[in-house]
Amino acid sequence: MEQSQEFIQFMHRLADASDLVTQQYFREEIGVENKLEDSFDPVTIADKAAERAIRSLIEQHYPDHGIIGEEYGSVRADADYVWVLDPIDGTRAYISGLPIWGTLIGLLHKGKASVGMMSQPHTRERFFGDGTRSFLRYGDKTRPLKTRACIALSEASMFTTSPALFNEQERPAYDHLEAQVRMPRYGTDCYGYAMVAAGQCDLVVESGLQIYDIAALIPIVHGAGGIITNWQGDAADQGGQILACGDKNLHQTVLRGLQIS
Amino acid sequence: MEQSQEFIQFMHRLADASDLVTQQYFREEIGVENKLEDSFDPVTIADKAAERAIRSLIEQHYPDHGIIGEEYGSVRADADYVWVLDPIDGTRAYISGLPIWGTLIGLLHKGKASVGMMSQPHTRERFFGDGTRSFLRYGDKTRPLKTRACIALSEASMFTTSPALFNEQERPAYDHLEAQVRMPRYGTDCYGYAMVAAGQCDLVVESGLQIYDIAALIPIVHGAGGIITNWQGDAADQGGQILACGDKNLHQTVLRGLQIS
Repeated sequence: MEQSQEFIQFMHRLADASDLVTQQYFREEIGVENKLEDSFDPVTIADKAAERAIRSLIEQHYPDHGIIGEEYGSVRADADYVWVLDPIDGTRAYISGLPIWGTLIGLLHKGKASVGMMSQPHTRERFFGDGTRSFLRYGDKTRPLKTRACIALSEASMFTTSPALFNEQERPAYDHLEAQVRMPRYGTDCYGYAMVAAGQCDLVVESGLQIYDIAALIPIVHGAGGIITNWQGDAADQGGQILACGDKNLHQTVLRGLQIS
Repeated sequence: MEQSQEFIQFMHRLADASDLVTQQYFREEIGVENKLEDSFDPVTIADKAAERAIRSLIEQHYPDHGIIGEEYGSVRADADYVWVLDPIDGTRAYISGLPIWGTLIGLLHKGKASVGMMSQPHTRERFFGDGTRSFLRYGDKTRPLKTRACIALSEASMFTTSPALFNEQERPAYDHLEAQVRMPRYGTDCYGYAMVAAGQCDLVVESGLQIYDIAALIPIVHGAGGIITNWQGDAADQGGQILACGDKNLHQTVLRGLQIS
């Protein structure tokens, strides 16, 4: 627990550094003015600069740790501790001015997602957890996160970034699921998992995720009492087909549905 | 202009009052704990309490003005000045913990939407305008809003709250439009119009809107240089089928497309 406290403190420093970059380019007119020039892409600039800021602090403080980042690839990926970074998860929300993207900072310990943070600077929110406890810092207030109970799929709200995530084989299973829930909602990216942890949404189902899309979010959802696995019910640490639920019984129900379809 | 300044100052007071209520119930666990009791609905409670707070200030300061509100109906709807209120636009976002709902406060002058404000307290944002100028106050900073140019539909990003808004007759026109844009996005409610005004999105297309869903947003989009009409190109002040564009040439193109389909 003390060890995870140290890492969470450090994650706040990393997020402080990346927030400066991601906020600088969010809704900046410079991006709009130049969007027709192929050479200028404000998301890519912000993405890369934020990852550089984070990596440089990690290299300085934990030179033996590994790093896997969306923009700059892997170093020492076989180390005991490996940082997993997605500087802007939800780039479409980011370029649309919608404040539901996030900076994802995860830490694997021996291959397992152990501590994670999602920072959303425009709303001044940080969601973070270590698999046993999770918290939301909003402005200057911090409160614990707890998933909510949801007995039946017919009562559930469900998020996914887009039905277009699913391939031809997966789509019928997704459509079958969507037809059964009370309220589906699209366009949520990492913010959807944060809302499961916060007890605001019952499940997120997605596919085609990379390790850096999910590693930071696993300890947050687990620490709030929820569960994330792949569609086979196995560890989700490497990405792929993902199912996150606030209620563990609901998770079992949905898993069975995904496997039958 | 001085008159509209007075109304905008007053709208800030109205929004200060409604923000207290809407923030109190946003993501509150009391809503979760009680969601199975039919008698308790946190959105309805917040919606009604926020509208009461706004109406009571209007009655106090402008007793001759009319009011049209989503929750408490109309009084003096034939007055020269009529306030049009939707205390929580985007109730699905609200109950999902997503910070893209808003409180809409519009003012009609002789039937025409003349001044409007959208308040989003979780992000500390207020979008407001008087048809000639529009602004965003974010935290303690205020900046002018300006729509962006967009030459071609193939370059456009387009928001809609849900394709399910459209009826059987409308859906083919919508689908045809969606197939032509660069990036469609769902689940945006009033926040979508604010992003058109902010130059972050090129068009919003919706249907089945009520007067209180749109009246506050028209002066904000117009003041930022954009245009909102119905699908026939006529005034949108009464709701119905809505098309909002940042670029007036794009608006003409899309209107033609909607009418042919």
